Amino acid sequence: MKRSKPWPTFAMLMLGIDLGGTDTKFGIVDADGHIVEQAKIPTHAHEGFEKVIERVAHTARELASRHMVQGVGMGVPGPMNSQLGIVYEAPNLPGWENAPVRKCLEKLLGLPVVLHNDANAAAYGEFWAGAGRGCSNMVLFSLGTGVGGGLIINGKLYTGPDDTAGELGHMTIDFEGPPCNCGSRGCLEAYASATAIRRVVREALAAGVQTSIRIPQGEEETFGARLVYDAAVQGDPFAKQVLYDVGKALGIAAASIINILNPERLIYSGALTGAGEFIFAPLRDFARARAFRRPSERVEILVAQLGADAGIVGAAGLAFESFSC
Amino acid sequence: MKRSKPWPTFAMLMLGIDLGGTDTKFGIVDADGHIVEQAKIPTHAHEGFEKVIERVAHTARELASRHMVQGVGMGVPGPMNSQLGIVYEAPNLPGWENAPVRKCLEKLLGLPVVLHNDANAAAYGEFWAGAGRGCSNMVLFSLGTGVGGGLIINGKLYTGPDDTAGELGHMTIDFEGPPCNCGSRGCLEAYASATAIRRVVREALAAGVQTSIRIPQGEEETFGARLVYDAAVQGDPFAKQVLYDVGKALGIAAASIINILNPERLIYSGALTGAGEFIFAPLRDFARARAFRRPSERVEILVAQLGADAGIVGAAGLAFESFSC
Repeated sequence: MKRSKPWPTFAMLMLGIDLGGTDTKFGIVDADGHIVEQAKIPTHAHEGFEKVIERVAHTARELASRHMVQGVGMGVPGPMNSQLGIVYEAPNLPGWENAPVRKCLEKLLGLPVVLHNDANAAAYGEFWAGAGRGCSNMVLFSLGTGVGGGLIINGKLYTGPDDTAGELGHMTIDFEGPPCNCGSRGCLEAYASATAIRRVVREALAAGVQTSIRIPQGEEETFGARLVYDAAVQGDPFAKQVLYDVGKALGIAAASIINILNPERLIYSGALTGAGEFIFAPLRDFARARAFRRPSERVEILVAQLGADAGIVGAAGLAFESFSC
Repeated sequence: MKRSKPWPTFAMLMLGIDLGGTDTKFGIVDADGHIVEQAKIPTHAHEGFEKVIERVAHTARELASRHMVQGVGMGVPGPMNSQLGIVYEAPNLPGWENAPVRKCLEKLLGLPVVLHNDANAAAYGEFWAGAGRGCSNMVLFSLGTGVGGGLIINGKLYTGPDDTAGELGHMTIDFEGPPCNCGSRGCLEAYASATAIRRVVREALAAGVQTSIRIPQGEEETFGARLVYDAAVQGDPFAKQVLYDVGKALGIAAASIINILNPERLIYSGALTGAGEFIFAPLRDFARARAFRRPSERVEILVAQLGADAGIVGAAGLAFESFSC
């Protein structure tokens, strides 16, 4: 007798989309946070809202048609109303003024869509399937050109009524400190971002500080922290000090966050985390020394695990949270 | 025919207790947050945990016997585990090391008890029945000898896993600022507490700064901000500057909190709020100037409404939240 085939089991899947000014990434993600299939397309942001959203929908449909996708989560870089699914504006996406993103995408895909700020989506990704797995209260600091972040409170993404919660780069650590891009002064971002590192290095070189660091011609505005890290590894005292100061600023901000929110984990993502103990040693020291004992002993300070995938995984995770029963 | 009396209606009531190092306050509170009856006894903290808790239970029983009390909430000043109902230690309550407060009180009263940090209970009071009524996300700053606080997030008191969340006095506003009682430097409390004001005034007088402020003999460590306020009202420039600087520090901290938490309301309690626009004008200005536009336009900056009753009302409110069906 021939054995009949068992019924196929349909694992529930969601599509996560991480929309950026340059590229848009897609991931089909299962209920455990694993990426089943992924894709990347250029955003062609200059073409404006409708063209961009149609191109995104095209790739999303293609991926969804190959899988039993039940819903879509999308992270977008810009102020928004996640409840209404409207993006107010997006500095890197021309023409996205009061864009009804969710409604458009739902119509084009015939699937429910949940929309969030890209930094919040990435924070949720780490919480759901990365370094935050298993905890309930977590704060993510993303260290890039700027410093962003996201908050998980009582097991849920906390965005605040304007979806602006988690702007951790813009907490003050010295109210008379260096000017920040946001218009204020002495924000964490003015000390602990790639932009801040570039400023410090340029100023030091101009002042004739002794260091082995050399900025490649034409890269004054773009060179990465890697340049500083490599010099630090070679023992360059100035380079080590630059990274120490970044870690110190992060530790001071961490202490404030520990005292304010008593989180279980502080998680750091972004290229700067590659500097390892050059920044994490002072970060831990200043956090512990400046925060209350009990919550500073409790908190785990960790590096993010999902890298560039946090955005698609988190967006899909938020779709699971919204649409699975 | 005689009209028969209607059945009495039994409104649900809870007992709120605000245990302090000097006095302990009690309030029978209804479901709308109104105090039906209140009482106050000396704590006699030096007698130690068991005696204190027995005396508290005695008054609690007396009050409860006159009302249909369904449960008890209590605020205690000190680190604790609110889940387990244990106070780890309390600087102003000798002998309260790992004290099983909830269990003892439940046994003595035969009623369910919920325990919280006193600052958190007061914050909940303002949220439930004071200046925070009707919002979902609120931050309370209490301005007294020190600066404390409490967080309401998504309509619930957020305390963190160690019940230490909301230590808003110990967020850094200048990492190289004046030393703080907590062991760190440049905390908000080092700028915006009664202690900080006393330090600034004493130092200025010692340095011969021109001002009409005179500290009454023997009150160097105890004089209130009222002294500075009265001088400011009379036009004393130094006194006005002292209060301006307090407001500025509070505004800088408010901006960080607005960027981190995107709250609907910031509420200020404590004696210092009596200085009115001398501190609230710079507070609003610095908060708005340093925070992101959308959340800073959203946030309402308000004075607390319940005064010294916030603790008992909030403790009772937390009992309603825990024990009413």
